[in-house]
Amino acid sequence: MSYLISCRYTVVPFSDVVLPPLSSKVVKFVVDVRGGRVGELSRSSMPFKPLSISPLFLGGSPLISFRVGGPPLSVRGGTPLTTYLSVVFSDYGLVDELTSLEGVYDTPYGRFRFNVDSLEVVDVRALGLGLTKFFRVDFITPTVLTSKYMLPPTLKSRSRSLPEKHRLVPQPSLIFSYLLRLWNSVVSPGERIPNTCASDWEAYKLGRLSDIALVEVSYRLRPVSVVIGRDVKGRLRIAKGFKGWVTYECLSSKLLQVYDKLLALATYLGIGRSRGIGLGLVRVKTYNTKTNDSS
Amino acid sequence: MSYLISCRYTVVPFSDVVLPPLSSKVVKFVVDVRGGRVGELSRSSMPFKPLSISPLFLGGSPLISFRVGGPPLSVRGGTPLTTYLSVVFSDYGLVDELTSLEGVYDTPYGRFRFNVDSLEVVDVRALGLGLTKFFRVDFITPTVLTSKYMLPPTLKSRSRSLPEKHRLVPQPSLIFSYLLRLWNSVVSPGERIPNTCASDWEAYKLGRLSDIALVEVSYRLRPVSVVIGRDVKGRLRIAKGFKGWVTYECLSSKLLQVYDKLLALATYLGIGRSRGIGLGLVRVKTYNTKTNDSS
Repeated sequence: MSYLISCRYTVVPFSDVVLPPLSSKVVKFVVDVRGGRVGELSRSSMPFKPLSISPLFLGGSPLISFRVGGPPLSVRGGTPLTTYLSVVFSDYGLVDELTSLEGVYDTPYGRFRFNVDSLEVVDVRALGLGLTKFFRVDFITPTVLTSKYMLPPTLKSRSRSLPEKHRLVPQPSLIFSYLLRLWNSVVSPGERIPNTCASDWEAYKLGRLSDIALVEVSYRLRPVSVVIGRDVKGRLRIAKGFKGWVTYECLSSKLLQVYDKLLALATYLGIGRSRGIGLGLVRVKTYNTKTNDSS
Repeated sequence: MSYLISCRYTVVPFSDVVLPPLSSKVVKFVVDVRGGRVGELSRSSMPFKPLSISPLFLGGSPLISFRVGGPPLSVRGGTPLTTYLSVVFSDYGLVDELTSLEGVYDTPYGRFRFNVDSLEVVDVRALGLGLTKFFRVDFITPTVLTSKYMLPPTLKSRSRSLPEKHRLVPQPSLIFSYLLRLWNSVVSPGERIPNTCASDWEAYKLGRLSDIALVEVSYRLRPVSVVIGRDVKGRLRIAKGFKGWVTYECLSSKLLQVYDKLLALATYLGIGRSRGIGLGLVRVKTYNTKTNDSS
């Protein structure tokens, strides 16, 4: 049995601080230092890892710097920030590890106090958003998708020889083939979709169907670049992705049930590359066609 | 042997006029009244028809009303407007038909003078833009794509039972599977891509490859609605599509040669639904990565 464990922290810097371009690095530093199984996961480079550390939020806005070479992110001492740490695990004991992150930490970015705000534990079988035919996906942090997500499984062995390129528009096939593989990687075999024997073909097929079953009703999107760190030679590593929102109409009530679960997971673990450090975070809600869509 | 024939006209209203929401209707009225083979094509509802009538342009901007219920398009008497009429045909005689459109016409929208500005005749085998790896596509009139363009040919018989829904983001597969089918429909059998025997499968396969071979480098896009007329019951017919531009990087030099030809055709005949009345018109140019992309 797998649980989704999500913990919200208030993070307060003791003095004025300059944050890294991707502010989740502050939280990741603390998680890595504390170690344990969560620290191990955070440091791991495994694909589809069952963990996401969100950026620091200031009043609902994620603190991420989009302008390469622009002014750095800075926050006044004493300002309360928020962050979320989400993990899917079959071990209830992780709850203690997450709550015990409370404390005061000296980081390369300054001194911070971490307090647990709230803790949510959900059986993955109960995950769902209750979506109806029209729903809206807000990509609240930059989302990075690559066309490799829709490589037919028979060509998997040649995947490494293909260039790693990012697609800058949210194509349903890329989103849902990714999410089904994520789901089936993080849950116990008995909770896989559609069943225990699910392979990469199920993800590929769901992707293919999604480009037919989902149509955009409206959207506002823009491409963004984000500094995600430095490589071994000290050069900036920049990821290209997109931000914004899309309202979809789902033409298949059968697939809607699958999307409902996958998107519920995505609101905790994110979508696409660098989820572990808070990229690809989404909010999803049923869209009332009578409300204005321009917000 | 097939030729692309494109004629540019200056159209001047004699007095102040109120134009229809899609101003190509003025030109279409004249073409339909004049009859001949061009008029016949214009009235035909055949799919992939080899003709496109552009909207009227005022100083480079297409005259199209996007606001349903907004103020109507109006133009002062004496203002010179421009329109383009493009046809692919194997009969050189069409040139006379196009040039003989010169004259004065009374239309339901007012009285207009048509003058031929320029005429271009190109052998379709010579069509090409000389694109390099990076190129930018400007969707200058609303472009309407449906997910049916990527329906596997084996499911073609079930196509009519699927709802007709428009996709609002330009997915490479939809654009290029459409354009290959358009190309192969309008040219002589010997000029088909990849060869005389080309079927719907080639279009499907090109589409599939295009979602891998083309990645967005940057874009600015927005969904738009446009009034394309009234149905038999007098209700407004509104098409949903998108406008804006996308810069692509092409990862396959082999496919680039195909895209080069197809996009050259698209600059005359457009892409997607309602091309005949000027939707889906594009401008395409090689993109110099050193130039700014924000225009």
